[in-house]
Amino acid sequence: MLISALADLSGTPAATIKYYVREGLLPAGAREGGNRTSYDDTHLHRLRLIRALLEVGKLSIGSVSAVLEALDDGERPIAETFETAQNALSRDAVPGVSEPGAESFERADGVIERAGWAHCGDNVGRRIVAQTIDAFAKAGHPLTDDYLDRYAEAAATVASADLDAVGAIADRADRTELMVVGTVLGDTLSLGLRRIAQAHRTAERNLR
Amino acid sequence: MLISALADLSGTPAATIKYYVREGLLPAGAREGGNRTSYDDTHLHRLRLIRALLEVGKLSIGSVSAVLEALDDGERPIAETFETAQNALSRDAVPGVSEPGAESFERADGVIERAGWAHCGDNVGRRIVAQTIDAFAKAGHPLTDDYLDRYAEAAATVASADLDAVGAIADRADRTELMVVGTVLGDTLSLGLRRIAQAHRTAERNLR
Repeated sequence: MLISALADLSGTPAATIKYYVREGLLPAGAREGGNRTSYDDTHLHRLRLIRALLEVGKLSIGSVSAVLEALDDGERPIAETFETAQNALSRDAVPGVSEPGAESFERADGVIERAGWAHCGDNVGRRIVAQTIDAFAKAGHPLTDDYLDRYAEAAATVASADLDAVGAIADRADRTELMVVGTVLGDTLSLGLRRIAQAHRTAERNLR
Repeated sequence: MLISALADLSGTPAATIKYYVREGLLPAGAREGGNRTSYDDTHLHRLRLIRALLEVGKLSIGSVSAVLEALDDGERPIAETFETAQNALSRDAVPGVSEPGAESFERADGVIERAGWAHCGDNVGRRIVAQTIDAFAKAGHPLTDDYLDRYAEAAATVASADLDAVGAIADRADRTELMVVGTVLGDTLSLGLRRIAQAHRTAERNLR
């Protein structure tokens, strides 16, 4: 298909498509005779993935590029691709926050241990959790361990759903892609559902 | 205290403090003799809250302003203040995404109904959930109802922890503040813990 058809099908302006190609996010189309370039379904599929990462996942162009590169490397173990996606996402999610204190790291480690997450290594989430513990305390509302453990229980529920969905897919490339898409979009899904659950509970308890 | 002491205690440069005052986020200090302005603990407390909202919550200056205004209105029902915080946060979290399709709204309503969230009204989360359902489908990975319901279960766990923490506070202003801080920072806490849980489960299942 020509770029105009790709633009129509994907809802992405032709100028934006060309920009993605220049930035290396999207492979160039095939040169046909004259000035024509043709695109196919793989371009459409990739374009939809890019827009999901940019718009709903709020990733920067640089982060999308890092994630797609990991995705396209068929040799890379899936856990490593996953880590790249996690790091890219988390860098954009929690920018420029000051280094958490040692006590907050200890408390984060406490949650991790109580949750039984033995295999998490040097995961980026540990730092995010420590930063959040710090931020609550600095804002004058230190968190209890009970609160942290209930959040951890919810995270375990969500991660099981993620891994079950990923494990149900046979094709490796497709599976890795869902892992990346799910990491990005799952955060937004959690956020949306949390809003509704909070509104329901607030009305239910009739707090004033 | 003078602005230099406030800057030291809060870790915020004096120029930034002056900027927050100009933007109406922070009340002006008391004019003393000559060119001196003095600040007190209420300024320090508010400054820490502002930084938590900006840095960890990633709110824009405009959204912080809307949230603080709701917080300072002692007449406002707590559910309404909460809604203001939710809207401000969500506007910044999911910007400029296209309107979800009717089918995705129907599926979002299905999750809400199955979760028993009868009292959520016209909550902003409904739109976010519909957008995410749309985005997964557009990226080529449509979600199952089972996946959505497990995410909803996690959201219910988290919202109960939130409301228990808020309900344990007697002072109304303090309680409302925790509601706002918790809405903002809780998303980040969830995100961090989800990363760790995902890494653990991926290693545990030894996916390749």
